[in-house]
Amino acid sequence: MKNSLAYSLLATAALGLLASTATSHDTPEQDDSPMHGYAYGNPALEASPVSLEQLRELQTSLLFGEDDVAALRMSLEVLRPQVDDILDVWYGFVGSTPHLLAYFSDPATGEPDGDYLAAVRKRFGAWVLDTAKAEYDEAWLAWQHEIGLRHHTTKKNLTDGGRGPSIVHFSHMVALTIPVTTTLKPFLEKGGHTPEEVERMHQAWIKSVLLQTILWSHPYIKDGEF
Amino acid sequence: MKNSLAYSLLATAALGLLASTATSHDTPEQDDSPMHGYAYGNPALEASPVSLEQLRELQTSLLFGEDDVAALRMSLEVLRPQVDDILDVWYGFVGSTPHLLAYFSDPATGEPDGDYLAAVRKRFGAWVLDTAKAEYDEAWLAWQHEIGLRHHTTKKNLTDGGRGPSIVHFSHMVALTIPVTTTLKPFLEKGGHTPEEVERMHQAWIKSVLLQTILWSHPYIKDGEF
Repeated sequence: MKNSLAYSLLATAALGLLASTATSHDTPEQDDSPMHGYAYGNPALEASPVSLEQLRELQTSLLFGEDDVAALRMSLEVLRPQVDDILDVWYGFVGSTPHLLAYFSDPATGEPDGDYLAAVRKRFGAWVLDTAKAEYDEAWLAWQHEIGLRHHTTKKNLTDGGRGPSIVHFSHMVALTIPVTTTLKPFLEKGGHTPEEVERMHQAWIKSVLLQTILWSHPYIKDGEF
Repeated sequence: MKNSLAYSLLATAALGLLASTATSHDTPEQDDSPMHGYAYGNPALEASPVSLEQLRELQTSLLFGEDDVAALRMSLEVLRPQVDDILDVWYGFVGSTPHLLAYFSDPATGEPDGDYLAAVRKRFGAWVLDTAKAEYDEAWLAWQHEIGLRHHTTKKNLTDGGRGPSIVHFSHMVALTIPVTTTLKPFLEKGGHTPEEVERMHQAWIKSVLLQTILWSHPYIKDGEF
């Protein structure tokens, strides 16, 4: 066990390798080409098995309220110009953590699949902005369901023809809530907001990412136990 | 959706009802009688299906390091004299949230089972202190596994003969990481520590509770997908 934030920042520095598999201008607002595999709002998506009413109950269990929606939306313009730097930190952490990099690597050779990493990175950038937009309707639920299926054996590797293993295990998918939100905090601090506002944005991000990883877990859970 | 912290504090005030089902002196250090159903360290417990090596990997994914262990242990003496007040807040939140109170209520009558609530409350107090002690070995893993089984259909209601439904659903069990740790923060602030130390304790608590709810999820997850 290591001091984790230092570890993750160190990892970033160490990881020219992975970060360089993606160009530096592929965040959605800087790239006009359609983003392969991005399907938020696509009416062809399968409806979520989770109803809006269940979502509201889950939000209540998470103490997720209108104040959190406002804090997430406040974070949108803070994060938008920093998306690439945020992804460098996240990819640095994943790339320097062998059991996580394995999810993006060919199980036969152990070799990271650079094309797959780069394709996911584009959508990861869009996900940052979508999370900050904080719209919780049926289109959003259907997209969360699709994201879950793409981590699960149901659809893993299908979108990009990736050569990774056939699943991202449940436990690590949910655990990543923490590095994603912990490493986000320094970026939230760069928007000129008060420490109280930064704290509110940070807590809202923790809740929103946990909400999403819970929803992504649906295909992993035995029938009737979600 | 409501402003959640205010909501939870309000709930506490509103909930004489449930809080009063437990006596005010049943935290472990004030009660010499053995605690029914408490089995941490009991060698008769089934071993966890999660190995120590898997636990270390999961801790890495959670950015959980030695600094977090130290922060949790720092919280032990801060929280010990406040356990009953903490439980009042948590029970207040559960008791005022119908879909959560349902897990402690007879599905036939909708009536909360006061004996069951009181029995769980005792062990919940011990759990606060155990979480702050932060020992991560095989005995701890076996106890987490047992706690998971008791939320799952496998063993729900068996320990106390409770009259609740036969499962605590996965999604709410993991979601409760947030109210448990959010409402803890004001208690962490009462130990005379610096704001930085309070923040470190709070973040360590979020990681530790999420780690535990992930482990408790094991019986809910399809074979090989944990």
